[in-house]
Amino acid sequence: MEPAVAEPAPRPDVSESVLLREIREQPAALTRLLEHRAEYASVARILRARGVDLVRLVGHGSSDNAASYGVYAFGLLPGWTALRDSISLAVYYEAKTDFGGSCVVGLSQSGQTPDVVAYVERARARGAFTVAITNEAGSPLAEASEVVLPLAAGPEQAIAATKTYTAQVAALALLAGYTAEFGQRIAEGIEHVTELVSELLPGLERRLSEVAVALAFVGRMFVIGRGPEFATVREISLKLLETCRVAAAPLTATDLAHGPVAALDGLFPVWTIASDDPLLPAVQEAAARAHSAGATLFVSGTGAAAIPDGDYYIPVPKPGLSLLTPLLSVVPGQVLSWALARAKGLDPDQPHGLTKVTLAR
Amino acid sequence: MEPAVAEPAPRPDVSESVLLREIREQPAALTRLLEHRAEYASVARILRARGVDLVRLVGHGSSDNAASYGVYAFGLLPGWTALRDSISLAVYYEAKTDFGGSCVVGLSQSGQTPDVVAYVERARARGAFTVAITNEAGSPLAEASEVVLPLAAGPEQAIAATKTYTAQVAALALLAGYTAEFGQRIAEGIEHVTELVSELLPGLERRLSEVAVALAFVGRMFVIGRGPEFATVREISLKLLETCRVAAAPLTATDLAHGPVAALDGLFPVWTIASDDPLLPAVQEAAARAHSAGATLFVSGTGAAAIPDGDYYIPVPKPGLSLLTPLLSVVPGQVLSWALARAKGLDPDQPHGLTKVTLAR
Repeated sequence: MEPAVAEPAPRPDVSESVLLREIREQPAALTRLLEHRAEYASVARILRARGVDLVRLVGHGSSDNAASYGVYAFGLLPGWTALRDSISLAVYYEAKTDFGGSCVVGLSQSGQTPDVVAYVERARARGAFTVAITNEAGSPLAEASEVVLPLAAGPEQAIAATKTYTAQVAALALLAGYTAEFGQRIAEGIEHVTELVSELLPGLERRLSEVAVALAFVGRMFVIGRGPEFATVREISLKLLETCRVAAAPLTATDLAHGPVAALDGLFPVWTIASDDPLLPAVQEAAARAHSAGATLFVSGTGAAAIPDGDYYIPVPKPGLSLLTPLLSVVPGQVLSWALARAKGLDPDQPHGLTKVTLAR
Repeated sequence: MEPAVAEPAPRPDVSESVLLREIREQPAALTRLLEHRAEYASVARILRARGVDLVRLVGHGSSDNAASYGVYAFGLLPGWTALRDSISLAVYYEAKTDFGGSCVVGLSQSGQTPDVVAYVERARARGAFTVAITNEAGSPLAEASEVVLPLAAGPEQAIAATKTYTAQVAALALLAGYTAEFGQRIAEGIEHVTELVSELLPGLERRLSEVAVALAFVGRMFVIGRGPEFATVREISLKLLETCRVAAAPLTATDLAHGPVAALDGLFPVWTIASDDPLLPAVQEAAARAHSAGATLFVSGTGAAAIPDGDYYIPVPKPGLSLLTPLLSVVPGQVLSWALARAKGLDPDQPHGLTKVTLAR
């Protein structure tokens, strides 16, 4: 006889996976970052005193994805222009760029990424104020930079970055926040997010273990979203590529309509990040286009309920500050990458052919 | 009995495809653009007189891919910082960005892309000097901008952009060139490119019709390259997505190592753009990584011969100015998109579910 109320499936055993353990450590990592808020406030004061209004963000992989968030954090809080700068212009072409008046923020978990270090050295020599945000205070990136802001995420052992990505996003929000005299609000907002993530995770682990079954034979996928969530879109695509060997491509909601929609069919699903913000109508239009093309729609984000034709819904709760939504909306993608790797018989802790620190140029 | 020298296969009949006809029209389109070189020189003088040193490029789809080239053209010629700016910050979030001292270059073939027009209006109201580069002098984008530079590519009927993309790349090279008092050299370089493309095309059409057979059952692909060729990488990926329904993802050579390499196997080929420039060693490393992962390697570009383990080589000749290489290296990808669509039984002129002018936000 069935019980009147189904027992929830047990939460997976954390000893199974380093990746899952680090996904769960994210609230603690963010809390550690907040212990350094005074350092972020202090660097923000330097940026304001120097009259910086152009922020050049550099990193590779997940760090570059976090940089996509930085474009919005600086654009929306102090109203500064921030860009993911070309590393190759400075390092390989030795372009005669004037770096005066710019702040460079170098992002690297290990602080060892060679051409990020080379970029920072060159930009500093040409007049930029250089800031490293890294997990390793004694790293080459930290040595090369005028000031170092700790990520404080703790050692990351899984090859696929999770807690260092969310810590980078939070770090950029804090730095941008303090430059706009809004840092205290951001810090409180991040505290609130740590509680929301802790509450969200057990249900996500169960739900995405089910969702992963539907995706087990999928070889290609689009991940769409726009604005600050483009960072999330890029990061989820990277997790699925490296951990699950799915050809996941990140697109802005608008990119989708400008060509890629032509490739969709019933075996080419679309993961949609819908946040409840001014871009929601654009994301709704894109999701409707994907649905019309026959794609299976996975809908996540704080605005998931506003997308009518989803096949699977994985909503996340709203934080107090909508700019912090990407700290929540990436979590279902992280958990999916763990769950889908398991569903495909892959080891989520050992992506094929990768090592933790990438020294590629 | 076999003839002593094999007869070359006949060149495909152009009446078969609007896309192929427009690919072939590219030398003529570039020649028409050059008739407007004095207008480009004149706008460049305005930019210099105004002391512009930040260029904000905006566009969607192929226009945004051309903008990726603009980052390098302005970075390498006048040494200015150029960025593909966030449209959503200005249009949807109404960020309080200071546009004073910036030049905005709005790129749209039709001049109708709604949020590019809205961005230009807003940036102009906030102090930017606004330039439209468009095929349609009477379009909303042209109306919204202080000055209009003609693309002069002639009417484009194929849904997949080809001649307007190369015209945009050449237009950005011209504008950047004249700001650096190097415009005449760029114009001469483009003239030389028109000859090289005309000579290259017949052989490419035959060669890529053969290569397409090897790709007929491929569902996913990476296209890699770096620096100015990242524009090419993005544009070839978009052609393959929209025309051939291949899940083609653009990656910098360095991105590949930071995760995506884990997804590669023998059924996941990599198209590599190797140019003979300072980034060639980085591209060589990336190609070696893809080869080690078991991927079939298609190698194109002026530096193709420097990649040791390619399975298929599609070299292109070197133009006099290496900055103009992207005008040549995109052509094999355009021809492949036509040839592969045919090999897959798709109509290259009618991508699934697309129309010529995309009004998506």
